[in-house]
Amino acid sequence: MAQLDTSLPGVRQMQKWIRAKTAVRVQLRDGSKLDGVLDWQDVEFLALRLPNDVEPVLILRQALSVIRSLN
Amino acid sequence: MAQLDTSLPGVRQMQKWIRAKTAVRVQLRDGSKLDGVLDWQDVEFLALRLPNDVEPVLILRQALSVIRSLN
Amino acid sequence: MAQLDTSLPGVRQMQKWIRAKTAVRVQLRDGSKLDGVLDWQDVEFLALRLPNDVEPVLILRQALSVIRSLN
Amino acid sequence: MAQLDTSLPGVRQMQKWIRAKTAVRVQLRDGSKLDGVLDWQDVEFLALRLPNDVEPVLILRQALSVIRSLN
Amino acid sequence: MAQLDTSLPGVRQMQKWIRAKTAVRVQLRDGSKLDGVLDWQDVEFLALRLPNDVEPVLILRQALSVIRSLN
Amino acid sequence: MAQLDTSLPGVRQMQKWIRAKTAVRVQLRDGSKLDGVLDWQDVEFLALRLPNDVEPVLILRQALSVIRSLN
Repeated sequence: MAQLDTSLPGVRQMQKWIRAKTAVRVQLRDGSKLDGVLDWQDVEFLALRLPNDVEPVLILRQALSVIRSLN
Repeated sequence: MAQLDTSLPGVRQMQKWIRAKTAVRVQLRDGSKLDGVLDWQDVEFLALRLPNDVEPVLILRQALSVIRSLN
Repeated sequence: MAQLDTSLPGVRQMQKWIRAKTAVRVQLRDGSKLDGVLDWQDVEFLALRLPNDVEPVLILRQALSVIRSLN
Repeated sequence: MAQLDTSLPGVRQMQKWIRAKTAVRVQLRDGSKLDGVLDWQDVEFLALRLPNDVEPVLILRQALSVIRSLN
Repeated sequence: MAQLDTSLPGVRQMQKWIRAKTAVRVQLRDGSKLDGVLDWQDVEFLALRLPNDVEPVLILRQALSVIRSLN
Repeated sequence: MAQLDTSLPGVRQMQKWIRAKTAVRVQLRDGSKLDGVLDWQDVEFLALRLPNDVEPVLILRQALSVIRSLN
């Protein structure tokens, strides 16, 4: 698997959300939604920390439909 | 990840919509629709600014079904 | 992104429909259908002109399920 | 796009159905089904001739779920 | 298309089921299920022989969700 | 098929869950969920051992939507 291309605007936007601990809403392909804070991203997964959770959940990047900040 | 091939008609059409701030409707694979103005595109995401929003939402290119201008 | 391989029968069939302005029906993965005339194809999108529309809609090739002529 | 690898059992099975004009049932990812006779296959599409149709419909290979003969 | 990598545990598990004619349950992406015995696998398809059928059905590997033995 | 890149945080997180026999919940693209303990992962599949089962079920990596620990 390739490394993330950090010159891509989408990857950079998510890095900003990760550093700023911005609350985001992730909409999955099946229409369901998860709110939380991004911990990290790699080429295969986004790690999203849900409110009050210690460990993030892993979301398959390909299962993503829309991601937005909740600011 | 590869760079966008700006010689492709689809990529060029979206660049036109971006430059002209054309209102577009994005239909996702789950059938849901989002209206807004495209801010930018990269190989993985489209950035769509919804009405009255400051930051665009990121739409996974693979989650796209149909995109059309609202002109 | 690679160029279309115009030696493939599927690509050639769509080129025929484009040149002959054949009315086609596109069925998407979510089961919804769109009728129109193909304007162009590239490796990522089909451009389908719906009746009475000036600009074609862009359909992600991967979001396609079935395409048929309406002749 | 690559050429079909005719050493693969799946590709070879479909070539047999094509040559023998075997009636097949194609089940798509959305659960819908189409019955017909395969005209040809390439890396992107299957061409399926429905009963009484002159031209085959093109089915995106990736939109396929199950294919079986109706013998 | 590449050849199957028979050093992968998943590919090896399916080879075991094929050789032992183990009854398996295949769950597809749309949630539907098929029970049978695996005849062969290649990089694109699984061939599943349903009870009392002479020919296996071909299941697109990408359309698979879960596979388990029924032992 | 490539080997797993064990430098990726997602792959490493799952290796931790495998070694610690952590109970996890896997949510599939169709919204259904499976709870169990991960036995192994490769580039194509996750092997999930359901409660009281001897053999793990194989989950196509691409069919995954979300995975989380149940701790």
